[in-house]
Amino acid sequence: MEKPRKIIIDTDPGQDDAIALLLALASPEIEVLGLSVVAGNVPLQLTTINARKICELAGRPDLPIYAGAEVPLMRTLVTAEHVHGKNGLDGPDLPDPQMPLQTGHAVDYLIDTLMQEDVGAITLCALGPLTNLALALRKEPKIAPRIREIILMGGAFSEGGNITPSAEFNFYVDPHAAKIVFGAGVPLVMMPLDVTHQALTSDAALESIAAPRTAVAVAAHALLNYHDRFDAQKYGGEGAPLHDPCVIAYLVNPALFSGRQCNVEIETESSLTQGMSVVDWWSVTGREKNAMVMRSIDRDGFFSLLTERLGRYL
Amino acid sequence: MEKPRKIIIDTDPGQDDAIALLLALASPEIEVLGLSVVAGNVPLQLTTINARKICELAGRPDLPIYAGAEVPLMRTLVTAEHVHGKNGLDGPDLPDPQMPLQTGHAVDYLIDTLMQEDVGAITLCALGPLTNLALALRKEPKIAPRIREIILMGGAFSEGGNITPSAEFNFYVDPHAAKIVFGAGVPLVMMPLDVTHQALTSDAALESIAAPRTAVAVAAHALLNYHDRFDAQKYGGEGAPLHDPCVIAYLVNPALFSGRQCNVEIETESSLTQGMSVVDWWSVTGREKNAMVMRSIDRDGFFSLLTERLGRYL
Amino acid sequence: MEKPRKIIIDTDPGQDDAIALLLALASPEIEVLGLSVVAGNVPLQLTTINARKICELAGRPDLPIYAGAEVPLMRTLVTAEHVHGKNGLDGPDLPDPQMPLQTGHAVDYLIDTLMQEDVGAITLCALGPLTNLALALRKEPKIAPRIREIILMGGAFSEGGNITPSAEFNFYVDPHAAKIVFGAGVPLVMMPLDVTHQALTSDAALESIAAPRTAVAVAAHALLNYHDRFDAQKYGGEGAPLHDPCVIAYLVNPALFSGRQCNVEIETESSLTQGMSVVDWWSVTGREKNAMVMRSIDRDGFFSLLTERLGRYL
Amino acid sequence: MEKPRKIIIDTDPGQDDAIALLLALASPEIEVLGLSVVAGNVPLQLTTINARKICELAGRPDLPIYAGAEVPLMRTLVTAEHVHGKNGLDGPDLPDPQMPLQTGHAVDYLIDTLMQEDVGAITLCALGPLTNLALALRKEPKIAPRIREIILMGGAFSEGGNITPSAEFNFYVDPHAAKIVFGAGVPLVMMPLDVTHQALTSDAALESIAAPRTAVAVAAHALLNYHDRFDAQKYGGEGAPLHDPCVIAYLVNPALFSGRQCNVEIETESSLTQGMSVVDWWSVTGREKNAMVMRSIDRDGFFSLLTERLGRYL
Repeated sequence: MEKPRKIIIDTDPGQDDAIALLLALASPEIEVLGLSVVAGNVPLQLTTINARKICELAGRPDLPIYAGAEVPLMRTLVTAEHVHGKNGLDGPDLPDPQMPLQTGHAVDYLIDTLMQEDVGAITLCALGPLTNLALALRKEPKIAPRIREIILMGGAFSEGGNITPSAEFNFYVDPHAAKIVFGAGVPLVMMPLDVTHQALTSDAALESIAAPRTAVAVAAHALLNYHDRFDAQKYGGEGAPLHDPCVIAYLVNPALFSGRQCNVEIETESSLTQGMSVVDWWSVTGREKNAMVMRSIDRDGFFSLLTERLGRYL
Repeated sequence: MEKPRKIIIDTDPGQDDAIALLLALASPEIEVLGLSVVAGNVPLQLTTINARKICELAGRPDLPIYAGAEVPLMRTLVTAEHVHGKNGLDGPDLPDPQMPLQTGHAVDYLIDTLMQEDVGAITLCALGPLTNLALALRKEPKIAPRIREIILMGGAFSEGGNITPSAEFNFYVDPHAAKIVFGAGVPLVMMPLDVTHQALTSDAALESIAAPRTAVAVAAHALLNYHDRFDAQKYGGEGAPLHDPCVIAYLVNPALFSGRQCNVEIETESSLTQGMSVVDWWSVTGREKNAMVMRSIDRDGFFSLLTERLGRYL
Repeated sequence: MEKPRKIIIDTDPGQDDAIALLLALASPEIEVLGLSVVAGNVPLQLTTINARKICELAGRPDLPIYAGAEVPLMRTLVTAEHVHGKNGLDGPDLPDPQMPLQTGHAVDYLIDTLMQEDVGAITLCALGPLTNLALALRKEPKIAPRIREIILMGGAFSEGGNITPSAEFNFYVDPHAAKIVFGAGVPLVMMPLDVTHQALTSDAALESIAAPRTAVAVAAHALLNYHDRFDAQKYGGEGAPLHDPCVIAYLVNPALFSGRQCNVEIETESSLTQGMSVVDWWSVTGREKNAMVMRSIDRDGFFSLLTERLGRYL
Repeated sequence: MEKPRKIIIDTDPGQDDAIALLLALASPEIEVLGLSVVAGNVPLQLTTINARKICELAGRPDLPIYAGAEVPLMRTLVTAEHVHGKNGLDGPDLPDPQMPLQTGHAVDYLIDTLMQEDVGAITLCALGPLTNLALALRKEPKIAPRIREIILMGGAFSEGGNITPSAEFNFYVDPHAAKIVFGAGVPLVMMPLDVTHQALTSDAALESIAAPRTAVAVAAHALLNYHDRFDAQKYGGEGAPLHDPCVIAYLVNPALFSGRQCNVEIETESSLTQGMSVVDWWSVTGREKNAMVMRSIDRDGFFSLLTERLGRYL
C-alpha cells in the first residue's frame, strides 16, 4: 500500500466541514498533520471551538489545531448562520472542547510545515474561505512550489452561486484570497457547487450513517439532519449538498469524480459578480489552465465511502 | 381569432435571425410592421443587406427596413464571422437585394412607431445587440411605457456564455445597451442560451424543413446546414442551437417555453465578466424582478412549429 | 475680418450657462446657429425654459432651441439645485418665455446640421453633461469627422472635483457620454475646473457688469450674485468660478488661455472615482493625446472681455 | 525632555528612504527600534541590502532589520529602477553590508513588537508600499488599537500621481495594502506628493549637506545628487522632491507641516485610476475622516533640520 498522503486541512466548521473532518480522520489513505482554522461559516472564535469539538469526537485530541485569519483580506466578514445555526455546528449536542489550540498562528503553521517537509510532500485541503492560504502565500512565496496540490471546495459555474446569483460562499467571503490561490501556480483541484450539488443527502444515506449508533454515528446524523433543513427549504429538493466532504473523498478515491483542466479566474472588481469563479470550460479564452475543475460525482460511490468510513469509528 | 400582434423585429442577420424572420413572416398570429437593423453578427453594412435578402426570399419586398446603430454604445464592435461566415448569411446562394432601405434611422423608426400607435400596441422582438433599443429609450424615454413587451434573445446563466465563459454574444457586444433595456421598466421576456441550447437542430429536422423543396425550404436548409458547422465543431454535439427563432416561436406559442420571473442585472464594469447576465433565479438578492427568464423549451413542439410554418411558403 | 465661427451651444442653464449664452450672442466673432438643451444643472423641463428665457433676454427669440436628452446614458440623473437654485436660474426675475421650442430632437438637430453644413464648418460648445453629443455620435458616427472642434466645460485634474473629491459635475452626471466624446477622434478643447476656478468673480467685476443698468446688465448681475453664494459658502473664497463662459471666451480670444495637448480618459467603472477625468499632463502613459487641456486663464482679460461684451446689449 | 518616540521604520530603500533613515538615526527625539523592509523601489533582495548599507553608514550595525513581503497583495510587483538606478541606491559607493538580516519575518516583527510593548507605545513610519503593514493587520487584527500612529509617505491629490496620472508610486504598487491600512481605524498621517513636491532639493541645500565632508555627508550628497536627475529631467524643475524624509521630519517637528483631517479612500477596482488616493479635502462625501492629510511644508525649516541633523554624524 502507498504511504498515506500528508495533508493539512484548512477549515471553518460548519456541519459539512465536520463531516469532512470525520471522513479524513477515519481514512488510512490520508495522514492529517493538523488543522488551520479560518473565519467563514461563523466567526473564528466559533470555528476554532468547532474544530476541536470534532477532533475530540473523532478521538483525536492530539491533533494540532491553529487559529488563523479572523477577517478576509479586503472585505468585511460575511458569515452563514442562516445555514449553519448560531454556533455553526448546530444539530448534535457536543461537549465543550478540552483540547488546546496551539499557540502559533495558522499562517505560520502552514508556512513552517511546508518549509520543513520535503518539496511536494504536503497537500492542502481547503474547506472554507482561502484567507489563511493567501496570507501564507504572500508572507512566504517560497511555499508555492513546495505544495503538492491544493484541493478546495469553492466556486460554481453551471450552477450559479449559493450566496449571490453568481458567487459561491467561500469565494464570496474572500474573493481576493481565492484570486491569490488561483494565481499561485500550484496544482489545484476545485470542487464547485456543480459537483457538490450532486452530492445530495437522502433519508436512506442518513439512516445508513446513523445505523452504527456510535457517538460519531449519532453526531454525524444530527449534523446532517440539521444541514438538510436549509437547502430543503430553499430549493425544495430531496436533500442537502455535502460540499466539503467531496474534497476528502477525492483524496481517498479520485475516481469518484470527473472534471476537466481549465482556466479559472476569480472576480474581485465588480460588486455585482464579486467572488464569482469564471471557469473557461470550453477553452475559449486562451488563458492558461490553472485548475482541475470537477463537474460530476458518483453519488452512490460517495455515500458508500462516507458511510463505510464513518462506520469505522468505535 | 385574435388580431395579430404588431411587432417590430430588431435584428442583425445572421443565419438564425434569418430563420426567425422567415418564421415570423409566415405566422398569421404576428403582424411584422418592419425591421430595425443593427450591427452584431456582422457589420451594419452586411446586416442591412442580409435583412433585405431574407425579406425578398419571403416575398415581402414591401416591408420597411431601417438601418440603425453601427457601433455599440461604449465598446468597440465585436462581430462573429467565425460563426456566421464572411457575409453573415453564408450557406444559401441568395441574390443581391433589390428592395430599398428606408431613409430614416432605425432608432427614429422605433420611436415614431411607438409614439404613433396605441399605448401597449407594439411588441419589440430583439435578435441582436440591443443598441437600437437602448438609443431609442435614451433619446425618447416616453416610449418605455408604450411598449407592450420586449422579447429578446440574449444572456445565459446555468449555461455559461458562448463568446466568453460568462457572457452570451448579444449582451457581450453591447452590455451597456442591455443594461439600459433591463432597467427600462418594460415587460421583458428573455431567451437565454439556457433555452436556445435546447433548441438543437437535428438531421431529421433539417430534412423535414428541406422537404417541400420550395425556394424558402432550400434556403432555410442551407442556412441551417451552415449554422450547424460551428457548434458541431465546438461542442461536438448533434446539432446547433437555434437561438433567434425561439423569440418568434414564443410569440406564436408561448406554451412551448417555461421559465420564471426574475431579477436580471447586466455586468458592465468588470473586464472579466463583461456582458454577463446575472439572473437571480432563486430570488436571493431581494432586487426587483424585471424579466421573465425562460429556461426550457419543448424541442419537438418547436421544430414542428418551425417546419410547419416554413412549409407554408410557396 | 474673418467670417464668424458657426457654433451650436449644448447647454443646461444654469446661471453660468446663461452668462455664457449672453457672451456668445453678443460676440460677432461667433455665429450661434442654435441651442441643443440637455438635463444637468436642473431637469430638462427647466433647462429648456431657462435657455429660452436667456435668448429672449438677449433679444434673440428667433434662435432655434431644441430639447435633448432627459437622462444620462447609464446613470440616474443627478442635478445641482443646491448650486443653481430651485429653477436653475435663480437670481434675476425673468419672464416666462414666449418663444417656442423646436419640435425635433436636439440629437437630430446636431446630426442634421453637421451633415448639411460643410465638413469642418461647425464647432460644438458643450456647457453641460455630454449626453446629447454622445447620443448624436452613436446614432450617426459619420458626424465625427465633420465637427471642426468640440470646446467643452468639464473635468478637473489638479483641482479635484466639485461634486465628489475626484469628479467635476458635468462629467459625473454622464461619465459614459464624456467617455464617448473623448474617444470620438474629434479635436477637443477642455476647460476643466483647474481653469474655471481661476475665473473667479469679484465685487469689482460684478459692479462693472451691472454698471450699464440695461436689462441684460441687471439680470447678469443678479445671476452672478446668486451664483456667488454657493462657492463663497463652500470655499470661503472671494468669488465664484465662472465655468461655462470660459468656453465662449476661448472662442472669442484663445490667447486668454494656455494649456497642453494631453491624453484624457474618463473613469466609468469605479464607484469611488466615477466621472473623473484622468489627464496625462506629463505624458507618462503613452496613450494618444486627444484633447487640448487648458490650465490657466488671464483672469483680468477674461473679465474685461465679459464686461465689454455684456455692455453691448442695449 | 520628553522620552523619545519609539518607532519602527518600514522601508524600501531607495535614495530618499536612505536620507530618511539617516535623519531618523540622528534624531534624539526618536528611538528607532528596528526596520521592516519591503519590496518597492527595487526588489526585496536589494532593499534588504540597501537598508543594511545605510544602517552601517549611520554607525548602527546593531539595529534589527527584518525582511518582509516580496510581492504586493494582489498585483505584480512594479519597481522604479528608472528613478533609483539599478540597485536602488545608486549614487554613493557604499560597501556591501556586513550586518545580518534578522531571521524572522518583518510582519512578525511588527506584530510581536506591538503586542509586547505598551498599547500606544509604537509609531509606525512607512516609506514604501504598505504590504508589510497590511499583512500584519490581517494576520493579527489585535495590533490595530495598539499602534500609536502610522505616518506614511504616499498618495497625491492636487498634484496628480508620479507613476500614473492619478497614482503615487507607493500606493500604486500595492493599492490593496493601502486600502487595508486606511481602513484599519489607526490614527494616520499621510505625506502625499502635494507636500513632498514642495520639499525640493536645491544646489544650496545639497552643498550645505555635503559641507561637513564626513562619510555620511559625502554619501548623502551623492544620494541626493543622483536622486535629482530623474525629476529634473521629467519636470524640468530646480530640484527633486525629498519624499520619505518628510515622514521623519514630521516626527521631529510637526510644526513644519500643515494639513487637514480628511477622509481618504484608495482606488483598487479601476485599472485607469488604480492606486489613487481619493482625498475628501472639502468634506463633501460625509465619509468618516481617517487621516491627517498634509498639504504644505516649511521648505526652509525642513532643509535646515535635515542639514543640521545629518551634520551630527561624525
